[in-house]
Amino acid sequence: MKTYNIAIVGASGAVGQELIKGLENSSFPIKKFVPLASVRSAGKKIKAFNKDYEILETMHEVFEKEKIDIAFFSAGGSVSEEFATSASKTSLVIDNTSFFRLDKKVPLVVPEINAKEIFNAPLNIIANPNCSTIQMTQILNPLHLHFKIKSVVVSTYQAVSGAGNKGIESLKRELKTALECLEKDPTIDLNQVLQAEAFAYPIAFNAIAHIDAFKENGYTKEELKMVHETHKIMGVDFPISATCVRVPVLRSHSESLSITFEKEFDLKEVYEVLKNAPSVVVCDDPSHNLYPTPLKASNTDTTFIGRLRKDLFDKKTLHGFCVADQLRVGAATNALKIALHYIKNA
Amino acid sequence: MKTYNIAIVGASGAVGQELIKGLENSSFPIKKFVPLASVRSAGKKIKAFNKDYEILETMHEVFEKEKIDIAFFSAGGSVSEEFATSASKTSLVIDNTSFFRLDKKVPLVVPEINAKEIFNAPLNIIANPNCSTIQMTQILNPLHLHFKIKSVVVSTYQAVSGAGNKGIESLKRELKTALECLEKDPTIDLNQVLQAEAFAYPIAFNAIAHIDAFKENGYTKEELKMVHETHKIMGVDFPISATCVRVPVLRSHSESLSITFEKEFDLKEVYEVLKNAPSVVVCDDPSHNLYPTPLKASNTDTTFIGRLRKDLFDKKTLHGFCVADQLRVGAATNALKIALHYIKNA
Repeated sequence: MKTYNIAIVGASGAVGQELIKGLENSSFPIKKFVPLASVRSAGKKIKAFNKDYEILETMHEVFEKEKIDIAFFSAGGSVSEEFATSASKTSLVIDNTSFFRLDKKVPLVVPEINAKEIFNAPLNIIANPNCSTIQMTQILNPLHLHFKIKSVVVSTYQAVSGAGNKGIESLKRELKTALECLEKDPTIDLNQVLQAEAFAYPIAFNAIAHIDAFKENGYTKEELKMVHETHKIMGVDFPISATCVRVPVLRSHSESLSITFEKEFDLKEVYEVLKNAPSVVVCDDPSHNLYPTPLKASNTDTTFIGRLRKDLFDKKTLHGFCVADQLRVGAATNALKIALHYIKNA
Repeated sequence: MKTYNIAIVGASGAVGQELIKGLENSSFPIKKFVPLASVRSAGKKIKAFNKDYEILETMHEVFEKEKIDIAFFSAGGSVSEEFATSASKTSLVIDNTSFFRLDKKVPLVVPEINAKEIFNAPLNIIANPNCSTIQMTQILNPLHLHFKIKSVVVSTYQAVSGAGNKGIESLKRELKTALECLEKDPTIDLNQVLQAEAFAYPIAFNAIAHIDAFKENGYTKEELKMVHETHKIMGVDFPISATCVRVPVLRSHSESLSITFEKEFDLKEVYEVLKNAPSVVVCDDPSHNLYPTPLKASNTDTTFIGRLRKDLFDKKTLHGFCVADQLRVGAATNALKIALHYIKNA
């Protein structure tokens, strides 16, 4: 059996850590594991496969020198911009950042939907979609194949881990401060005691409709990613309207979805289609308080969907609420599935 | 100048406390203040107007005996069901609960929209709408008058104070437990250490798409309130689709709104209309990170709207994000405005 030399750029980050866990728990045939990071982290030790590895500095030559077969990039767009192309000369690059996603020569892959694109990568770079996009497409694609979607409206409830470990630590610190202040004075103005850390405003007890940068048209890049990436992955062009909101959840993104089909639909058929959809679990029994929540979805590889119901006025519109662990489903697990598909079919 | 005997049923609750603060800060001409509560709280002292008041037990006779002119009810639907009708024999009842809201003989009033209905109350009962509904109608009504709305899709981000003090205390307790456990073990499964308290699931670090009870059609009562109450207040019947979600925010509800008009619209006109809308403040300058957040909206009487933008595909659809303090804008302040309008015009 062929074995592979694997590198992770950004190995100590939130997604990097999930990639390591994923590799440990999968049957991935690894010959050598090479954790990479910026010069700041180089030389530090990192735990993986029950061993200590020394983190190497990400440099142009390191991929060839270490004979890396597959390099996962999850250290931010600027790192991918600088190093992915040189890495791709000798390694297959699977890039978690947004840098290459809309590049026509780079396939954007959710393996459950368009795995065949993995072998259509002339630059030797495959892009992993945005976290919010992956879970949404896992719901939309099977529905579109069966019912034909006309348009989608989505509002997100996104976890702080979307901003990596920095987001997680900020929320915990801010909450600690807020709770201490509230204990002394329950009427205290939290705007006066909390400092914005990882986000534009404090995220403790807050909701911030601002993820990634604003564009001139009033949309955030995150909202546009959900539109353009979905179109590219699914090969469609139906209208999608997204509003992306950060909420004080540690992990797992939730999405309120309103999906209008070309024709009237049968709700029972929707259940059937989604029950058979890969990586999707229908969790929908209101009479027993069963519906997806981020706490329940965390640390799983499943996209959960529930609250499925017909619009009260429009027989062509379906509403639902989907939740997935965005560090896994929305990042590490998807990247690993791409790699596994690649080595199985290469 | 005429003065009034005022009672608050549920005076020690979250909305009751805001009503007291509102009365203290307004020029309401009060002759006598009578705080009422269940037998459990009766006899306890409550602070108001820099004095201590003894809480009396809510009983059928107390309103006549105390010569109450205006009785605010905010102690839950079952209390209003039991006592509002007897109170209404001698007092004007302003009811914060959902019990009478869809009763055809009871006006449902947002004073900025349909104040005239205050004098069309044959049962001597006026209903205060649902908190999520009030802030939404303050945005929708001026837009509808100017542009004519065809349909609305809304997803909410609702604070725990919607469940009263119990909701607030639960979130703080759960977060304290969660943070302590995470400090000992950052990888701990919070599902194992958190107990559901005020809500169906723990609300700390969670998002729960379940507010009020589920109906057979898969909607929650909260979602249906946003539809039917908006129709009644605005006198319209256009389609509204709501998804209501509880988030770990202490105070102030946020709403992601997608509004489709009958015709194409000019975004500048939308700004003009909303800038002139009563009780609404447009907070919308992405280049300076200005948009509404629940932390900023808390302890104000304003409904903030921002993130206004045209749909990318449909020239008739507008998106926006509105936030308001639901204990004030969504409850106490609206009830007080009703009372003030009543005494000024009676």
